[in-house]
Amino acid sequence: MAAPCARRGAGAPWALLVLALLASPLAAALKLDIDGQAIVDQLLHLATYSDDPNPAVTRILFTENDMKARGYIKQLMAEAGLTIREDTMGDIYGVLPGANPGAASVSTGSHCDAIPLAGAYDGTLGVVGGIAALRALKEAGFVPAKPLEVVMFTSEEPTRFALSCSGSRAMAGVLDAGYLDSRRDENGTSYLAAATAAGYGAATYGEMLQGARRTPADLAAFVELHIEQGPLLEKEGTQIGIVTAIAAPAALRVSFSGDGGHAGAQLMPWRNDASLAAAELALFVEHAALSAGSWDTVATAGYWDIKPNAVNSVPREAVLEIDVRDIDRERRDGGVGSIREEAAKIAQRRKVRHSVDIINQDPPATSAPAVVAAAAAAVSELGYSSKRMVSRAYHDSLFMAQIAPTAMIFIPCRNGWSHRPDEYASPADIARGVQVLAHTMARLAGDAADAKQEL
Amino acid sequence: MAAPCARRGAGAPWALLVLALLASPLAAALKLDIDGQAIVDQLLHLATYSDDPNPAVTRILFTENDMKARGYIKQLMAEAGLTIREDTMGDIYGVLPGANPGAASVSTGSHCDAIPLAGAYDGTLGVVGGIAALRALKEAGFVPAKPLEVVMFTSEEPTRFALSCSGSRAMAGVLDAGYLDSRRDENGTSYLAAATAAGYGAATYGEMLQGARRTPADLAAFVELHIEQGPLLEKEGTQIGIVTAIAAPAALRVSFSGDGGHAGAQLMPWRNDASLAAAELALFVEHAALSAGSWDTVATAGYWDIKPNAVNSVPREAVLEIDVRDIDRERRDGGVGSIREEAAKIAQRRKVRHSVDIINQDPPATSAPAVVAAAAAAVSELGYSSKRMVSRAYHDSLFMAQIAPTAMIFIPCRNGWSHRPDEYASPADIARGVQVLAHTMARLAGDAADAKQEL
Repeated sequence: MAAPCARRGAGAPWALLVLALLASPLAAALKLDIDGQAIVDQLLHLATYSDDPNPAVTRILFTENDMKARGYIKQLMAEAGLTIREDTMGDIYGVLPGANPGAASVSTGSHCDAIPLAGAYDGTLGVVGGIAALRALKEAGFVPAKPLEVVMFTSEEPTRFALSCSGSRAMAGVLDAGYLDSRRDENGTSYLAAATAAGYGAATYGEMLQGARRTPADLAAFVELHIEQGPLLEKEGTQIGIVTAIAAPAALRVSFSGDGGHAGAQLMPWRNDASLAAAELALFVEHAALSAGSWDTVATAGYWDIKPNAVNSVPREAVLEIDVRDIDRERRDGGVGSIREEAAKIAQRRKVRHSVDIINQDPPATSAPAVVAAAAAAVSELGYSSKRMVSRAYHDSLFMAQIAPTAMIFIPCRNGWSHRPDEYASPADIARGVQVLAHTMARLAGDAADAKQEL
Repeated sequence: MAAPCARRGAGAPWALLVLALLASPLAAALKLDIDGQAIVDQLLHLATYSDDPNPAVTRILFTENDMKARGYIKQLMAEAGLTIREDTMGDIYGVLPGANPGAASVSTGSHCDAIPLAGAYDGTLGVVGGIAALRALKEAGFVPAKPLEVVMFTSEEPTRFALSCSGSRAMAGVLDAGYLDSRRDENGTSYLAAATAAGYGAATYGEMLQGARRTPADLAAFVELHIEQGPLLEKEGTQIGIVTAIAAPAALRVSFSGDGGHAGAQLMPWRNDASLAAAELALFVEHAALSAGSWDTVATAGYWDIKPNAVNSVPREAVLEIDVRDIDRERRDGGVGSIREEAAKIAQRRKVRHSVDIINQDPPATSAPAVVAAAAAAVSELGYSSKRMVSRAYHDSLFMAQIAPTAMIFIPCRNGWSHRPDEYASPADIARGVQVLAHTMARLAGDAADAKQEL
């Protein structure tokens, strides 16, 4: 996971392109026919491919319902007149060719897999809505200079293999073959075996990953449409959120281990109670986040495992799993470092052994100013209210940002609820989101008719 | 559990009796033939009645192996020439009648049930050793003025019904019928049903409990022989421990409950993380014990239950089970009170809901000075080294102390290990312990031949 987020906003050619796009009279004339209710109908049809009864949606990578969903997505792509291709990891693309076939693509997409008992809008909006956006552009007669594409990432949720964003990680080249090979589902099935059984895969993990790889040369921009999964837009009555940064989690596992003992017999001065080391560290985690200087810094000791965990037994082992998130990588990693240091100090003070493992440490992403500007111009042109905001949950965009100028578009969702069956976004909000997506992509790709204005 | 430990040492008749016993020339002449290896052979034979293969011993109340063990104990009692009786709870008595049949008995005893994967000496020493002590006295021609009895308490371990010391609690009249009726084993079987199937029991819980009841009028003294379950005697090379006080546990369950939330989305200032309330309370528990002013005060948050317990989820609920022990009831209960108060303060400060339940709060026991003195005189007469000490684990003696002048006799055990298959006490230490027990009981019961010296 080495490649930093590409920061493209500083380059002169990009700034000029942005000005050109903003000034383009043709962009202002683009009128798209987008039916929010029709998109909702498609989302609810997609939701029927579920292991649990609707309104709950459970759809796990490469299972039967996931395969049915893939069939439906390809059907929608075909009906939209897009060229369909699938890669070795199972990512599904629908492409609207541009006037310059060799040019880098302007891409949109999200995921259709769903954690157990989820809702019908998380991820799916970005795929079904992306197809609707491209369809509307095509039907309006818009011919992009660069190709437009919508991708359904093969999986974003970690349910089956304890690995999130498998498709976008592979595209960004940050998924290690050995690591992917170490993953097994609850039945011991490997990712490669499951992909192969689903009609994807390759001879080796290396080949399977390579077959999904994209590079900055392939991608002019990536824009993901998603429900906010938070309550701010709805509370404020703002119609569109333009995401300027995506927080990313780092997770650590800290283990403390002492001698334990009988709760009655072991006198206090001679104890090295592992749970008290964990207690001190959990309180430090809170302190570290609160004193980081930004509300965007959050840290949580969410998982506790105490052994032997009997009322009459001094705790002998304590494991904490800690989640640290921020939109600023340096600040986030500084927090991780201070937690590691404090764990060592606590261990020494309390005379326990300890170990720290980094479970993951994904880089946060800053949206590309050019893509943010294109979205802002689209919103302005469409006359919607909007605000800049941060995404506190992470998405495939987090990894796409490592290989393409990226931003996200949020629409409100009821009460901010997500990952639950009563997740909901209105047809009107969905229509607005898809309009913004389409207009933004059109600006980024350029109108073939305006090709002579490109520099 | 209302009756306080009877403190008999202050009474004039007792003091004079002690002087008389110490001065008695016949007591000095008592020579008992006790074969430590033979007792070990009996303990190892008893250990074969086990659900797990030896050296591990697992023997659960009223199960098949427990019934076989009971049969063996009754066989040993019969071979010792003792009169056998069993009560409605399943306690088994072996009695050596005294010259004064109506007099209060001098009693000894312990338990033969064993927690999973225990050893061969915990509890069994006090039963098999007690039988050996009474047998040796009988075979030496000693006729006690008061009856002598050895009791195998029906169960001391809480394994089957989450209830410790069922027999001694019933004898002391501190086991509530309704509470006993609420107990069920893992198969849903009630105590009464299990006792009845084993050949004990009664028509009702009340009758079953009443059938086990003893009163201070029945009991002149109670002395329990037990392995130390700690390392002090072995480390110091001291042969006998005379227990002056038995610590008793109080246990509390404290529950904290907040709103939980997504670890990425919920900003720090708006959290009410239940696990952090638990962390603060656990650290306070340690502080309360360390600052109580006595090494005898111990407190432990041994059991933790955090929900939902996922790394990316702010803890919504936290339950702690806390064990507080002391030999001083007031100090122990003061500790419990301060923990309750602090839980309320923490809940208010951290804006979580909380509740506190007392799981148990048994009174600690102080040994009766007269019984301690009798044991000390026995040790002195036998020429063994000894020390006064506290029992930090609790035993049936804790409850017998509520209805009789009580003390315990400890012998060393290897490394202080107990509740494990490699628990071990040497034949020589066992023989010394049984000698002290027999001589102590003889002193407390009085020699029928010296009856005219009693006041």
